[in-house]
This record gives sequence, C-alpha cells and structure tokens, in this order.
Amino acid sequence: MNTYTAAVVGGSGFAGGELLRLLDGHPNFALVAATSRQFTNRTVGSVHPNLRHLDLRFSEPGTLEPVDVLFTATPHGVSMERIEEFQTVADTVVDLSADFRLSDPADYDTWYDGHVAPEMLSESVYALPELGRERLEGASLIASGGCNATATILGLLPFVEHDLLAPEDRVVADLKVGSSEGGAGGGPASSHPERSGVVRPYAPTGHRHEAEIEEHLGRGVSFTIHAVDMVRGAAATSHLYPEELPEKADIWQAVRDTYDDEPFVRVVTGGGGVYRYPEPKAVAGTNMAEFGFEIDERNGRIVTFSAIDNVMKGAAGQAVHAANVALGFEETAGLGFTGLHPVGSP
Amino acid sequence: MNTYTAAVVGGSGFAGGELLRLLDGHPNFALVAATSRQFTNRTVGSVHPNLRHLDLRFSEPGTLEPVDVLFTATPHGVSMERIEEFQTVADTVVDLSADFRLSDPADYDTWYDGHVAPEMLSESVYALPELGRERLEGASLIASGGCNATATILGLLPFVEHDLLAPEDRVVADLKVGSSEGGAGGGPASSHPERSGVVRPYAPTGHRHEAEIEEHLGRGVSFTIHAVDMVRGAAATSHLYPEELPEKADIWQAVRDTYDDEPFVRVVTGGGGVYRYPEPKAVAGTNMAEFGFEIDERNGRIVTFSAIDNVMKGAAGQAVHAANVALGFEETAGLGFTGLHPVGSP
Amino acid sequence: MNTYTAAVVGGSGFAGGELLRLLDGHPNFALVAATSRQFTNRTVGSVHPNLRHLDLRFSEPGTLEPVDVLFTATPHGVSMERIEEFQTVADTVVDLSADFRLSDPADYDTWYDGHVAPEMLSESVYALPELGRERLEGASLIASGGCNATATILGLLPFVEHDLLAPEDRVVADLKVGSSEGGAGGGPASSHPERSGVVRPYAPTGHRHEAEIEEHLGRGVSFTIHAVDMVRGAAATSHLYPEELPEKADIWQAVRDTYDDEPFVRVVTGGGGVYRYPEPKAVAGTNMAEFGFEIDERNGRIVTFSAIDNVMKGAAGQAVHAANVALGFEETAGLGFTGLHPVGSP
Amino acid sequence: MNTYTAAVVGGSGFAGGELLRLLDGHPNFALVAATSRQFTNRTVGSVHPNLRHLDLRFSEPGTLEPVDVLFTATPHGVSMERIEEFQTVADTVVDLSADFRLSDPADYDTWYDGHVAPEMLSESVYALPELGRERLEGASLIASGGCNATATILGLLPFVEHDLLAPEDRVVADLKVGSSEGGAGGGPASSHPERSGVVRPYAPTGHRHEAEIEEHLGRGVSFTIHAVDMVRGAAATSHLYPEELPEKADIWQAVRDTYDDEPFVRVVTGGGGVYRYPEPKAVAGTNMAEFGFEIDERNGRIVTFSAIDNVMKGAAGQAVHAANVALGFEETAGLGFTGLHPVGSP
Repeated sequence: MNTYTAAVVGGSGFAGGELLRLLDGHPNFALVAATSRQFTNRTVGSVHPNLRHLDLRFSEPGTLEPVDVLFTATPHGVSMERIEEFQTVADTVVDLSADFRLSDPADYDTWYDGHVAPEMLSESVYALPELGRERLEGASLIASGGCNATATILGLLPFVEHDLLAPEDRVVADLKVGSSEGGAGGGPASSHPERSGVVRPYAPTGHRHEAEIEEHLGRGVSFTIHAVDMVRGAAATSHLYPEELPEKADIWQAVRDTYDDEPFVRVVTGGGGVYRYPEPKAVAGTNMAEFGFEIDERNGRIVTFSAIDNVMKGAAGQAVHAANVALGFEETAGLGFTGLHPVGSP
Repeated sequence: MNTYTAAVVGGSGFAGGELLRLLDGHPNFALVAATSRQFTNRTVGSVHPNLRHLDLRFSEPGTLEPVDVLFTATPHGVSMERIEEFQTVADTVVDLSADFRLSDPADYDTWYDGHVAPEMLSESVYALPELGRERLEGASLIASGGCNATATILGLLPFVEHDLLAPEDRVVADLKVGSSEGGAGGGPASSHPERSGVVRPYAPTGHRHEAEIEEHLGRGVSFTIHAVDMVRGAAATSHLYPEELPEKADIWQAVRDTYDDEPFVRVVTGGGGVYRYPEPKAVAGTNMAEFGFEIDERNGRIVTFSAIDNVMKGAAGQAVHAANVALGFEETAGLGFTGLHPVGSP
Repeated sequence: MNTYTAAVVGGSGFAGGELLRLLDGHPNFALVAATSRQFTNRTVGSVHPNLRHLDLRFSEPGTLEPVDVLFTATPHGVSMERIEEFQTVADTVVDLSADFRLSDPADYDTWYDGHVAPEMLSESVYALPELGRERLEGASLIASGGCNATATILGLLPFVEHDLLAPEDRVVADLKVGSSEGGAGGGPASSHPERSGVVRPYAPTGHRHEAEIEEHLGRGVSFTIHAVDMVRGAAATSHLYPEELPEKADIWQAVRDTYDDEPFVRVVTGGGGVYRYPEPKAVAGTNMAEFGFEIDERNGRIVTFSAIDNVMKGAAGQAVHAANVALGFEETAGLGFTGLHPVGSP
Repeated sequence: MNTYTAAVVGGSGFAGGELLRLLDGHPNFALVAATSRQFTNRTVGSVHPNLRHLDLRFSEPGTLEPVDVLFTATPHGVSMERIEEFQTVADTVVDLSADFRLSDPADYDTWYDGHVAPEMLSESVYALPELGRERLEGASLIASGGCNATATILGLLPFVEHDLLAPEDRVVADLKVGSSEGGAGGGPASSHPERSGVVRPYAPTGHRHEAEIEEHLGRGVSFTIHAVDMVRGAAATSHLYPEELPEKADIWQAVRDTYDDEPFVRVVTGGGGVYRYPEPKAVAGTNMAEFGFEIDERNGRIVTFSAIDNVMKGAAGQAVHAANVALGFEETAGLGFTGLHPVGSP
C-alpha cells in the first residue's frame, strides 16, 4: 500500500476541516500540512474541535513544502491566481473551488469576474465521478464538483444518460440547503438569530451553478436555491416534464444502469417507515448520495429527489473520492463512515 | 360595537388553540366555550401554555350551548358527520377542515373517502378572502381555506387573475412546511429526533390540496411538499412557464392590482438586507402573507414566493378573517399582531 | 388619554426593534423617530421585516428632535458617553444598557472599564418593577434591568423577600439563554453552523450580571450561563440551600405574596401535560415571566425555575413597563400580547 | 485477530441502532442478529436509514441463536425479566438498561418498581471504564453506565478520586440533554412542535440517576436535568463547593492523573476560539467525553463541564468499550470515529 503525502490549503474553512479529517484517517495519505491565513500557528483543533487529537498547526500560505497531492479549499478566485504555485508544490492538485470547473473562459466572463489563468481550463478535469472515471485517472489538475451542482446532476443523470428526457423538456431543480454552504465566515444573514428556522430564497434565478450543471450534465435546468434550517445538507427536488412519460419499468432500468455499481449512490425505494425518500439527514457526515423518484401521471411529471452532505459529497468527500480515482487507490478508501441515526442536522 | 358569542370545537389542537387566542382578544367576540374529547374538564391553559390566563375548561363535544358563531377545528371527516348538529348550535359555522372546501361530491370520492353530507357542499362558501369577499358576506357555512392551498394560490393569483398565465402553461409549486402541519398528535415521523433538521418530501405527488387549488384557483399545478425544520410556516416557491414572458412592468401592475388593497398581503420588493424575499419567519404568529417574484429570462420562467404562518393565515387567522367579513366586522379585527424580530421558528 | 412622543436610539438592534414594535402599538405613545448609525436612511422594515408596514426611516444619531421619552438601546458604554445629550432631548430617558444599573462607580471599575458619568449613577433608578414601583414613578433616568439578572432575580425574589434564605446560604443560578442575547452583530461563535445545537458555557464564572444581581437582589449568587439552541429566551434554574428547608406551605405563601398581584409574573404550578414548569417558549414574544419551584428533601435543596423572553421582559418589554409606571400609564399598556402555541423558538 | 459473534436485542431503538452500526464496523465482532418486536422481518435499514447497506432483518425476540456476546438495549424492566434467557444465549451479556446498575436490591425498591432477579445484582459489573477496568475483564454480565450518570461522574471524578472534595461538600449537577434520551417512541412532549426550542426541566428533583451516581461515584449530588434543543448530547455543569478551594495546580494535577491515559476523555483547556469549553457538539457521533473546569474564587466554587453523546459514550459506545475491555480487545476497537465540524446537533 503506497502512502502519498498530502497538504491542504485553506484548512480552517468547513471543507478544509473535513479534508483534514478525511486525510488523517485515509490509509493511503499522510497528512503533512494545512495552511490558514487567519489562524497561522494555531492548532488545527482550536478551529475544528473534532480534530483536537491532531498534532498539527496551521502554517502560513506560501510556505508549503512539496507534497504528492495538494487539496486547495480556498474561496473562489484564489486558486486561479495561485495555480502556478500550487502546481510547483504538487504533481496532483485537487481544487475544491469553482475556478477550474468550467472549460470555456467565456463562461467565467458571464458568470464570474473573468479568469486570470484561462489556459488552465483545458487541462483541468471536472470531478463528479458518477459522470465517468476515465478522465480522472492520472489527472494532474482536478476541479471537484460543486455541492449544488452535484445534488442536481445526480437527480437527473439516469434520465439524461438514458434519453428519457429531451433537451427541450422543462426541468425545474428546487434546492434546499444548509448553513454550512455559507462557509465559516458568515455575515448578518448567517447569524443564528437571522438564519434559524428559515425558508429563504437564495439567488433564486441566475445562480452560478447553472453554468456548471449545464456544461457537465449537458443540458440546462431552471435552478432555485432555498436556505433551510440545517447545518449540513443539500437536497434537490427536480420536476421533469418529458414529452411523454416513460414507463415506470424503463425509469427503473435507467436508474439501475446508472447507479447500481456506484459505491456512493444509494437508491431509496420508498416502502414504509419514516425515511421513504432521500434526505440529507440520512447521509450527513458521509460521502453518500441518495436518489429516489415518483411519477406524477396527473401532471405529466417525474419528480426526483437527491440528497447529499454538501461538505462531504459536495466538497471534501468528493475531492478525496476523485483523488482516489486519479491515483489508483480503492475508490472508497478513507470514505467509509456510514452516518448516524438519529441525527439532528449534522 | 356588537359582540357575538363564539365557541370552538376541537380546541386542543394547534388551530383550535390559535382560535381561542384570537377570539379571546377579539373586540367583537365573546369566547364562551371550547370542546376537546381528549382534555375534557382540563383548563385550556394546561394544553396551551400561552393561555394560562384564560378561565376556561374544555367541555365535552356534544354539550354545546347555542352560540352565534361556531368555529370547528376537528380532523378531516368529523365536520361532515356532525354538520347538522353544528348548524343547530350556531347560525354561522366556520369549518377549518377540508370537509366543505370542494363543491363537487365526486372530488371527495377521488381525493378523500367520499362525503356523507354531499348536499351541504353547494351551501358552503370557500374562504380565502383574497379570492373575493362578496360570497362570504352573510354566509352560514364557511369552509376556511387550507394552509398549503392558501400559500400556493396567493403565489399565483396575480398571474391567473390578469391572464399572464394560460391554462396550459406549466406551473410547479414546491412547498416547504413546518411541523405544526402534522398536528398536535404526531407519530414517529413527527418525533423531535426524527423530525429535526429534515428536508423530507411529503406526499410528493397526488396531494389532496391539488384539488382545492384546482377548484379555487381555476387551474392545475404540479404540487410537491417538503417538511423542513420549523414549527410554523408554509412557503410556496412557484415556477411558472408562460408561453411568452410578460414585461416586468405588466407583472408589477398585476401584482399591485391584486394585492395593494389587501390588508393581509404584503408585497416584498427585494432591496438589500437579510429579508429580500418572502419568508415564513417574517409573518410567524400573524395573519399576513408575503408575496414576491423574480423573472428568469434565461429559462423563460417566473419564480414567485409566497409565505404564510400555516396555523394563522393557513387556519385560525383565515377563519377569523372570514368570520369578520361574513359578519360585517372590521376585516382586521382581532388580527392586529404584527410578528416578531428576531424570531427562531415560531 | 395622554399621548407622549417617543424616540428610540439604537433602533436597528434586537431590543431596539422590539421597542419600535411596542411603541407603535402603544396607546399612550406616538413613535416619532428611530436612529441607527449603520442603517441611516433605510426603512425600519428593511431591518425588521415584521415592521414593513411602518412608514419610518432610521435617522442619524445626533439629529434627534426633542421628545417626551427617549429609549436608548445602544451597546454598553455609549449611554454613559451621551447621557447629557439624551437628557437634553427628553425629560424621561429609559436606558436599556448596563450603563446606569449599578449605583456605585467602583463597581464599574471592577466589572466594566470604569464610568465616564459617575455622578449620574445616584440619579438613575433601576427598573425591575417587581422589586418595587415607587422609585420608578416620575423617574427621569431609568436603567432597565438586564435579561439574565431579571431571570435570576425573579427566581429568587420570594425567598429573599420573605426571609426563607439567609445571606450566607448557597445559591447557584444556572442559566440557559438564546442567541438573541448576542445581539444583531454576531461574530464567528454566533454564526448558524457554530451556534446551532449548542450547549455552550458562556463566561461561566465572573459574569458582569453578578454585580447587578448582587446589588438589586441584595445577595450574591453563583452565576453560570449557557448558550442553548433557541433565539429568544432566558431560563434560570436556581439551586437554593437554606440552613433548614422551609415548609412547602410557607414557600407557597411567600410566592403568592410576592407574585399574585404582579401582572407580568405567572406562577406555574405543575400538574399534568407537557408544560409543567416554566419555559421560555411559553412566554416568547411577551413581557411575562414564569416562575415555579420544587423541593428536594433528599438534598436539602429548593430548585426554582424562572423563564423570560430576553428581548421582552429582559429588555424592550421591561423598559416599556418601566415607562408605563414612571409616567402613570396603565402598567400593561402596549404589552398585551400573550404569546403563541405551538412555537419553535421565537 | 479473534472474531466473536454478536447479536443485539432491541435493535430498533436509538441505542440499538448505534450498536448495530458499531458492531458492523468492529474488527473483532461479526454481527449476526438483531431483534425487534415492532419491526420483526423488516430490514434494519428501513428503521435506521444510515444502515441501508446492511443485509439484515430484525428477528423476533425469543428466536435468538447462541452467540458469543449479546447486547441488550431494551426498555428498563425487560432485562431483569429475561436475564436467564439472555445468559443461555451468550456467555457475555452487556445490558444497556438500568436493570443491573445498582448492587443493592433495596435501591430498586426505592427508585424503581423493585427487582425480579435481585440475585443477579451481585454478579453484574457496572461499566464506566474510567472508574476502573479490572472488574470488567472477563465479566459475564455487564451493566453499561447510564448517559446522565456518565456525564455527571466524569465531571466530578478527578475531584472525588483525589480528595479535593469532601463527602459533605455541596455539589449541584445541572444537566442539559438532547431529545434522543426520550427514545424512539416519543409522546406528546417529544413531538417536534412541542420539543423544539425548549429549555424544559425534566424530573428536576429525585431523578433515578441519582442512585446510580451515588453508588458508583461514592457520593451524592443534587441532580437536575433540562431538555434542550439538540438530538444527541448530554452536558453536565457541576458546581462544587469544597470547604476550601484547592490550588489550580492541584486541580490540574488531579485532572491529568485521572484522564491523561484515558482514550475516551479529552480535557479542554480553554484558549481562544469558539470551542473553549466542553460541548456535546464536539463529540457528537463519537465515544469521546470532554472535560473542563473553571475556578470561581469570588463564590468559593469550582465549575466543571463534561459533555458526551448520550447515544454513544452514554449508551452504545460505552457498551462496546466495556465489551472490548471484558474480552481483551483493543480498547478503542470499532470506536475510532472522531466526529464532525461543523455540525448542527447530530
């Protein structure tokens, strides 16, 4: 069993903290460094109390020694500025920001403030392993898929891959997400008194993840996000209007073909009990995604449900999963935690 | 100022408790009795701690003395069984259940278990005052609109009333609701450990409120409900696909025409700050509804947001509002509470 | 019925917002102005969504026109700096900060950073009306009691006033408080992901409110505060160890003597049901305090429970109550809201 | 590495579900059966959604095949009825109920409804490994310590073991606990609308865990529990009044002597940041306990804080830990999960 050295840039954020946890427990990685501008020289455990057992202090960004793999969990815009430095430090860079997720520089002009290293966009490989592993193998610059895009794409993939949905068919993706999506910084809207108990539309039209979904799913969706009262979790309810409703058996066939061999997608088949549909609670703390669907004959609609932990399958877990594929490790290495029951909103 | 006597059947439930609070503080009503099968002879305050100051005990159903107005907040199916008795007790009956909301008995066969007093369906008047007051004036049997239907209808009304939406245009209504919708009884799925932090699809297709919306809004919608972590509140996000997107000014005109004179609808116009769109938190404890919208040119979509307190505007508040109209009181009588800030999830 | 003009300094904070709500609905006050440094010229409703109906914009501090009563809800330290200006603007100043709660300047040296207007400390009247109304009548500078001190004092008052507790008897006051106590600003510890689901000791020894309790209750307590997951609310559980346990009847007599005539204290007497003891939920949004107790023969202990809404009885409500007394209004004027059931954590 | 077969009686409850998760991931156990009266023949995953990957159905109680170790997580009173049957099934029985935690049958008469197998009380070994491992080695009937007792004992142990507290010194233990303590059944008080946002005194005097603490800690405490809004977690704040306050260095010495070699106790030493004291959030999902303290010179008091996950260190984790000791496994086997950050209230 090979061991690769790994470091995390931006280790004091939420995704950074999860990367530290996952790498610390990973059989193929040796975690050697974590940077944080704000918490330089503080112990990792002073920021992430679950990591108080780690004998590691945050180092200053810019002081990184060479490692085999570098995970970068900085705010959007930082990685594109520092990509050259990152690639000097490590042969394999896994970036968790949006900076290398789109291949067309023009999209960064449309959705962001442009791109300062547009030439790298053709080199980066988008990582949502359920879309295909091949391109990830041996990749040197990996752009780990975004949380909302991941939840949405996984709710639609069986239909798109198996031609149960035409490009012109309408799709609404209505998302409900937790407060950890706002990051460790937080502003007034993220303070507990204002953020508790909300159903709050967030960027209800024109959200940047539309571009990411469109490029990697290969079709557009009408996308709207709501903040709800949980810390971790992203749930997408997608409303699909195919020209003609497929047979239920054909949908099941498509779902099985798409997900039966996926180690991190669980198809929820209804039945009795409390947990009949996908829920973020059921996958909190894990790298699993749940998928389920219902057919609405009356309205000519298919409703699909997909749920992930945004910090895991939507960030740190997906990045480690992608690194596992890229480096030839066991796909599930370091990602074995199966979650808790009962659980509030982890 | 006239004072009418009032009683509440089913006073130990959540809507019943709010009726008691509202009637106790209402300038035109004298609250004289409340029934509860389960809590007979117990003080009202032993069930509803906010009403500990009330000198009133629950009486047995069936022991009601005549009153001017009877509010019935029993589980669905009870009112249709007891309507004759209710009408003997009071000239005006305001029913909060679904038993008299649909006018066609066949709909009760389709969506419920049939109706045992179908002849009353033509006498009952559906109460969502924003749909029109005239029919409510002097009505003797009022069917107060349901919470999810109310939230949905208010999010679509300006478009339907002003022909900005054709009957065949697709509309998705994606709702997020609080745990009080499950009532005071609760089952395993309502227990705190299981219900906390959820995004849980609930009857995601074929929900009974579709029939109520269809009849009273005059068009169908694709309807899906999700339980989220709040106690009070129902928020509808509606995704509209008109054949052609109207001009923004035309939408504003329709919204103003529809809601400017409504005492219980507040149009939220965005702007800065934390509260840019309608939110259940902002109306919790009140009879207000909030309405807002965005145009999504890219996807040919209008997104509307409507938020209510399901126990108030979706139940007890709406019932009192309807009674105010029916009896010729000031429309806002007894409904003046404006809500709190900050607030968790009242 | 006389009407007095009133203004609020610091109207964008949580206590300030509640003052605006209460004054707007108060029969004896005409709300004429609210200041906010941060939100100058913004509408009151853009910060407090429940007040969107108010036609009022925040004005700059320092531009206040004379009014009859000025309510000041600024951070600690501001009022002592500006008290001269405040008293020029209004004959009656009700200050919600800690700046005038202690009478001995030396205490400000011990517990705060000293006092810049120590001569005013002898003029100010501490307002916790249950401690006595007389001194409040006609007072020109009122120091409204703090939230944690109010909850604690009300849990001990019957015992202290009726000599059921000797000065040397041990008393532990263990408080559980909501996130609104941290104010509208908030730091990292107040962000939703970090503050959700906590039981977090806060200043567990040496908290400043000890001084306030000691002076106004007339005895010391061992005081420890915990942040828990609610927005509004402060609950004090006090553990009393009298030399000898009093008879239960004597305690009841003391409780009745102390609270039976208090309009804003409700004694909770146990019984069945869910709400057997005081709870912040039961008084959320109101100016009520709940009080209850149990005798623990086995450990020679009395346990008392007191619960308030920290933004109301612990801040804005108490200030209005004090003003009502000072100006000779009906004590309960403007404070009639009785709270909600069910309620999450308003 | 030896593998022992294990089964769980009462596998559909919260502690039972965690036992299944832990045993499934344990290197020395092979999970072969789980019983549930209510869910017989249903898959384990239909009740515990995090265990949907397990190929196991609940079997009927009474149909158990022999196993090496039997974990029994039934309601109090069941194990004492069925202990003979349990001991026929397995050489080692680890009971998670209160049925074998007290050694004196008279205590069951005082605190419970008596005991039907009093002769077993002298055979059972109480399991809170921090109190001593020796007696656990090779034990055949293990009574796993209760959640509230565990939290309380761990907050006092260094003081009691190192004679920093005399038997007559007063100690108040004020606990705050999550809703999972109420179990999977739940009544009206456990329903989400009633249980959300509470600070609710629960059995504030005379709680049964007093007896457990008294016997195993060797001294009494004044014990009061409050329900607060989290799902998992128990936090004890203990207020100690030694005759004379010890030196801080002596307390630290006692703490280090007591806990430095404990794999499941983490001493939190303050410092900056959000997490300065023990918190249930920081250990949620894990078998860790956190401990911390402050000295209150002013009041002659020591305040200690101890926090656990009641379902883990307070139930299933402690039971597995005890079995590891009893059977000679690595103490931490199967208990390596370190928890999450951020986390709501898992």
